[in-house]
Amino acid sequence: MTILERTDDGAVAHLRMNAPERLNALSDEMLAALQVVLDQLADDSAIRAVILSGAGKAFCAGHDLKQMTAARQAEDGGRASFADLFDRCTKVMTRIRTLPQPVIAQVHGIATAAGCQLVATCDMAIADTDTRFGVNGVNIGLFCSTPMVALSRNIARKQAFEMLTTGQFIPASEAERRGLINRAVAPEALAEEARALAQTVAGKLGAAVRIGKRAFYDQLDMSLDDAYRHTGAVMVENMLHRDTEEGIAAFIDKRSPDWQQ
Amino acid sequence: MTILERTDDGAVAHLRMNAPERLNALSDEMLAALQVVLDQLADDSAIRAVILSGAGKAFCAGHDLKQMTAARQAEDGGRASFADLFDRCTKVMTRIRTLPQPVIAQVHGIATAAGCQLVATCDMAIADTDTRFGVNGVNIGLFCSTPMVALSRNIARKQAFEMLTTGQFIPASEAERRGLINRAVAPEALAEEARALAQTVAGKLGAAVRIGKRAFYDQLDMSLDDAYRHTGAVMVENMLHRDTEEGIAAFIDKRSPDWQQ
Amino acid sequence: MTILERTDDGAVAHLRMNAPERLNALSDEMLAALQVVLDQLADDSAIRAVILSGAGKAFCAGHDLKQMTAARQAEDGGRASFADLFDRCTKVMTRIRTLPQPVIAQVHGIATAAGCQLVATCDMAIADTDTRFGVNGVNIGLFCSTPMVALSRNIARKQAFEMLTTGQFIPASEAERRGLINRAVAPEALAEEARALAQTVAGKLGAAVRIGKRAFYDQLDMSLDDAYRHTGAVMVENMLHRDTEEGIAAFIDKRSPDWQQ
Repeated sequence: MTILERTDDGAVAHLRMNAPERLNALSDEMLAALQVVLDQLADDSAIRAVILSGAGKAFCAGHDLKQMTAARQAEDGGRASFADLFDRCTKVMTRIRTLPQPVIAQVHGIATAAGCQLVATCDMAIADTDTRFGVNGVNIGLFCSTPMVALSRNIARKQAFEMLTTGQFIPASEAERRGLINRAVAPEALAEEARALAQTVAGKLGAAVRIGKRAFYDQLDMSLDDAYRHTGAVMVENMLHRDTEEGIAAFIDKRSPDWQQ
Repeated sequence: MTILERTDDGAVAHLRMNAPERLNALSDEMLAALQVVLDQLADDSAIRAVILSGAGKAFCAGHDLKQMTAARQAEDGGRASFADLFDRCTKVMTRIRTLPQPVIAQVHGIATAAGCQLVATCDMAIADTDTRFGVNGVNIGLFCSTPMVALSRNIARKQAFEMLTTGQFIPASEAERRGLINRAVAPEALAEEARALAQTVAGKLGAAVRIGKRAFYDQLDMSLDDAYRHTGAVMVENMLHRDTEEGIAAFIDKRSPDWQQ
Repeated sequence: MTILERTDDGAVAHLRMNAPERLNALSDEMLAALQVVLDQLADDSAIRAVILSGAGKAFCAGHDLKQMTAARQAEDGGRASFADLFDRCTKVMTRIRTLPQPVIAQVHGIATAAGCQLVATCDMAIADTDTRFGVNGVNIGLFCSTPMVALSRNIARKQAFEMLTTGQFIPASEAERRGLINRAVAPEALAEEARALAQTVAGKLGAAVRIGKRAFYDQLDMSLDDAYRHTGAVMVENMLHRDTEEGIAAFIDKRSPDWQQ
């Protein structure tokens, strides 16, 4: 049994966090496994969409507090260890964002703290209607400062601030309304909805989606003028792609494109 | 018959894209006409609000794919031509944003790709309830990279990402919920709603609206401190305006202002 | 009778603007009182949450137009005076944001212009369902340029633009839907809801909330990479806090934390 299962279905890779007894906590082992598998996917041109889910009762309950507590035994009280941990966690989150393929979180149970960050970080998210989301570190005196980076870029700031300072959970319906997830579906429909979304994305021209995902995040942090300059150049390169020429020609001719991808 | 009709009604200019047989595509001719007419409006102090609509079945279906395909015949495969096209398109979008007068999109049918960008770029938008919005370039292998600059500054990022990578359309009710349009109204009420909104804005002090629209976009890209520094100075200038002095005096005296505008 | 009443209830300070005959306008006196009391609170380690409300029919109706008009008598037509006023107002708004404790707006009646800015600036806001919100300076020729800095960082831009250029009000239900307030509650439940939210926040570890509030606003203006670098360091410091160690240990041991705070 591996801590992170990868199952491929055509052009879709499904990653399942598999430490149900720890609610799929982002332990050293889980972070390492995510980094390795995501790095592999980045170079896997056969894969055009990724699903991330969790085994057991929860999607992910955040950091592994027992491991973190054990690290306090070091001479520096854990300082170096904690810095390294948050660095590795940020690398995984950043890897999701820089992964060429779109990543869809398939969420159930609870997604808390860094687990909620994982949902916020994925490009898209589908949750079952029974899921609850929280950034509840404040309840134990550890404010969810890194999770809030992702959360506050997904939902309105007063909503984020309340979740962070009260530690209270929101249901999936509310997460959908606020934009934290794309939609909530019945528990029995969750896997199929995530699969269908992934297959839809995987059915597009892979090069176009890769170009687009990268440009999406690049331009978000730019001023409007810089964003247009950047994406204008991206559009030119996209137009000159062989398969894009074919895609447009096929559309004009009202036939299906013959893509080499 | 002109490709872009301008009809003035008091202080409101109504621009109607008029190439219904091409779903008002942003062809070379349409972009040129928009640039000319918007540049004229920028200097027309009698106009205090602008409505943009489309003739026929659709508001606007994006770029003109046949013209773009024809450009591939050039020696460079179209590279220079495409760069020029996206540059001209960005200039039109930027012109809407820098136009002194608020621009209201009056949307019906479909608004896709650069047509959806046009909606996202206008300062406000009213759509009829049957309108559908999409950034569906991905379906033909051309990711909507420039449209996403405007779209991702209007709606939550996961919602934008899904539209961009699936190519799927959203109905007007959803566009309203997400903030892409101000509201959806019954088809028979669309023209009157857009007109009423334009007349309301046109009824305000033109100088104040001009000052405000410019400051609105300027401060959006700034840090909070810079934004306050900038708008603080804007408020001082606004206060020193002759008509603003009269507006405030009239309010205190409970009478109508006698504006020179 | 003081223009700004402070009443402490345990670790919660309740500030009540008390100039009901002027709809709690942000007069020179009100701004000065807010600055003094907020500065005091910043150094008051016994207080862990703040409520801001208004006496009488309105939460706050914005700047004091009579005082502003009187300032026009100066030789410079009021220029220096206006610059100073907007500077002092921005200092109060910034003080709310930099205050170590979360500030909750308890809103009723109307919140207009700089009064709406006050709501947008507070970390959280609860309003009664009869409240109406507006940035209606445009109606008297004074565009709400400084209020829009806060407003446009709370709600979608087309929604903000319409409020600013039409001067029209939105009801509390709409303010909630857009993210301008956390929620609308029945008028008879308002005080208790605000109190309960403040007590919830005050019940958390004060150091964690202080660390978190500061990091929240710091990271919002940063690029994603900078935001992660910054908050990663914040998390390390938070982990090394004595009370956080106890909070995590207590959680693992399934007991209540024994915080020194």
